[in-house]
Amino acid sequence: MRSVSIIGVGRTKFGEHWGLSLRELVTEAALKSIEAAKIDGKEIQAVYGGCMASGHFTGQEHIGALIADQLGLNPLPSTRLEAACASGGVALRNAYLSISSGEHDVVAVGGVEKMTEVDVGQAGFALGGAGDQETELFHGATFPALYALMARKHMEEYGTTEEQMAAVSVKNHHNGMLNPYSQFHREITIEDVMKSGYVASPLKLLDCSPLTDGAAAVILCETGKAKKLSDNVVEIIASAQASDTLALTGRKSITELMATKVAAKKAFEQAKLKPSDIDLVEAHDCFSIAEIMAIEDLGFFKKGDGGKATEEGKTALDGEIPINPSGGLKMGHPVGATGVKQIVELFWQLRGEAGQRQVKGAEIGLAHNVGGSGATAVVHILRKA
Amino acid sequence: MRSVSIIGVGRTKFGEHWGLSLRELVTEAALKSIEAAKIDGKEIQAVYGGCMASGHFTGQEHIGALIADQLGLNPLPSTRLEAACASGGVALRNAYLSISSGEHDVVAVGGVEKMTEVDVGQAGFALGGAGDQETELFHGATFPALYALMARKHMEEYGTTEEQMAAVSVKNHHNGMLNPYSQFHREITIEDVMKSGYVASPLKLLDCSPLTDGAAAVILCETGKAKKLSDNVVEIIASAQASDTLALTGRKSITELMATKVAAKKAFEQAKLKPSDIDLVEAHDCFSIAEIMAIEDLGFFKKGDGGKATEEGKTALDGEIPINPSGGLKMGHPVGATGVKQIVELFWQLRGEAGQRQVKGAEIGLAHNVGGSGATAVVHILRKA
Repeated sequence: MRSVSIIGVGRTKFGEHWGLSLRELVTEAALKSIEAAKIDGKEIQAVYGGCMASGHFTGQEHIGALIADQLGLNPLPSTRLEAACASGGVALRNAYLSISSGEHDVVAVGGVEKMTEVDVGQAGFALGGAGDQETELFHGATFPALYALMARKHMEEYGTTEEQMAAVSVKNHHNGMLNPYSQFHREITIEDVMKSGYVASPLKLLDCSPLTDGAAAVILCETGKAKKLSDNVVEIIASAQASDTLALTGRKSITELMATKVAAKKAFEQAKLKPSDIDLVEAHDCFSIAEIMAIEDLGFFKKGDGGKATEEGKTALDGEIPINPSGGLKMGHPVGATGVKQIVELFWQLRGEAGQRQVKGAEIGLAHNVGGSGATAVVHILRKA
Repeated sequence: MRSVSIIGVGRTKFGEHWGLSLRELVTEAALKSIEAAKIDGKEIQAVYGGCMASGHFTGQEHIGALIADQLGLNPLPSTRLEAACASGGVALRNAYLSISSGEHDVVAVGGVEKMTEVDVGQAGFALGGAGDQETELFHGATFPALYALMARKHMEEYGTTEEQMAAVSVKNHHNGMLNPYSQFHREITIEDVMKSGYVASPLKLLDCSPLTDGAAAVILCETGKAKKLSDNVVEIIASAQASDTLALTGRKSITELMATKVAAKKAFEQAKLKPSDIDLVEAHDCFSIAEIMAIEDLGFFKKGDGGKATEEGKTALDGEIPINPSGGLKMGHPVGATGVKQIVELFWQLRGEAGQRQVKGAEIGLAHNVGGSGATAVVHILRKA
């Protein structure tokens, strides 16, 4: 299999973009990535797009063809992938496979979601499609409710506290202050989180990621060619994906995500690395409890210790292992774009271009993207080439 | 790139399956394909699923994880692809790339759509997402209307007649009579088609493919390994995909599908073959005019001659080049399943297992799958190995 690297990235600001449509968002991100890669659009040979529920949110399917059309890249093959909130991660992974196979040399990957054109009820229904509609949402179990069940069990089994979960949000709001692309720019305190209203007990408003419009894009290139184009490329040294049951009810444990554990194990094996070799992580924190479970399941902390580690500052920008230097999903979660945005952040960090939120000496980063309540997990490991 | 072959296939009957859900349909097809391949489910290393608009039709997204869950194939990576009615074709193509890359050896590909649980208006809205919602459906241009524009122009430019279009449907109903999996089992006449009501002039009810529930599945395997498992494998000797504008309005011509022409040219180059080397074709006949354009754009007939050729029986089961021996989309078009169903049919034909509709001496077959009004086209060429 051929090695694959990243040569350019781009993203939009995340937020409520009343003036920008899905196609304008993805075009902005894609054009920025092409410009950053310093290539001509004609060098691109295929397009992969991650998008979860554009049918519900905008009425539009066939997002692969839409992206190629908007970018004037016809007649290139252009393909949309969907794995709920891991749509961006699986788009990246399949673009990566299309280069490693020898089929393509240069591929553009986009992730996009336009979520704010429908009301909250419709958005909740659309997002419920990431879990098992028949056994969960149709009976009232929204996504916050599913993660609330995991949080409650995590508290019971490991003594995790609401304050420890709040510490995740406080850290991510702090990091988000340093990121010009964040949906929010506001420092918050543990008290702010604790006082925010319950969405699904024990999860409160400030434990949750928001509804967001946004897009992100990266340009992939076969590594040999990439090194000729640039002296500052970032190599994808591992790509792994795994599945779990769609519904929570089928799982042996709901305090861990089995798919994350399997994908992480495979990725570390492929990269011949261990968790202590990683300099920074973009983790899937759709809810504060999700980040706590993620840093345990990825192997950075012992199961049950994630809350305490966060509270102690071990996951802060200057901590043992900086988690979500970008501010994570808490700073905007346009579901189909999130997995690609994580790669954008790692690329900037590994090239030392992350400004005020730069993790010093970052050479190896890990991206962790989850679909639904953990039915899909994708892990990529990137290294400064 | 490694060679990829098919070692087993399965499908459901197409129709209105009031008693079967999306997950039951895809499970039935997948289990049949695994049984036909004579492998254990444990040998499968990844799953790819094609599905267009399950969010609209059933409320369920995250179809990749759903399929793996239903089949008990966790924690395998399982990925859904969407390219409107070409979702099945792009799922097959990306599964093929995942094997040719060396990442996997054995991959299951499923295609599924459950379309009859919503009313016709909702179905029309969902399907409109295959075209450009903003410039087409929102202004009243449904899918039959888009193809009606193409038909009208084809009639004007090439003298194609409504009777010639009707001949496509008559042939496909005849072939469908010989296929136990067809949605319809009824011979029709040119007069029947001409007397059926206009849906969008000049297209009448019997020029149109139906709304359908159904699923299809194939098992792919690296060719070396495939030949050890079976002495009767079918090799994928070409896989090509291309894009065009999402809306008709952006195209130079609406009497041809540029994406079909580009994908066909690439596929014939990859296979080192020409149209006259092909023994049978499963073509994308969502409307009768679509089959006429397809057999021209694929290179089997000169542009403008497709209607006449059909009328003269050149595309019949015993004609020069049998088109849609299965009965085509006219015999059921569960949009996400169609591209995979075409491969199922070719596999049976190339192994001489197609019963009463067997094309004699078939050794090389071509599958042509279109998304939307031609914004995506996928062409695969298969050969008895």
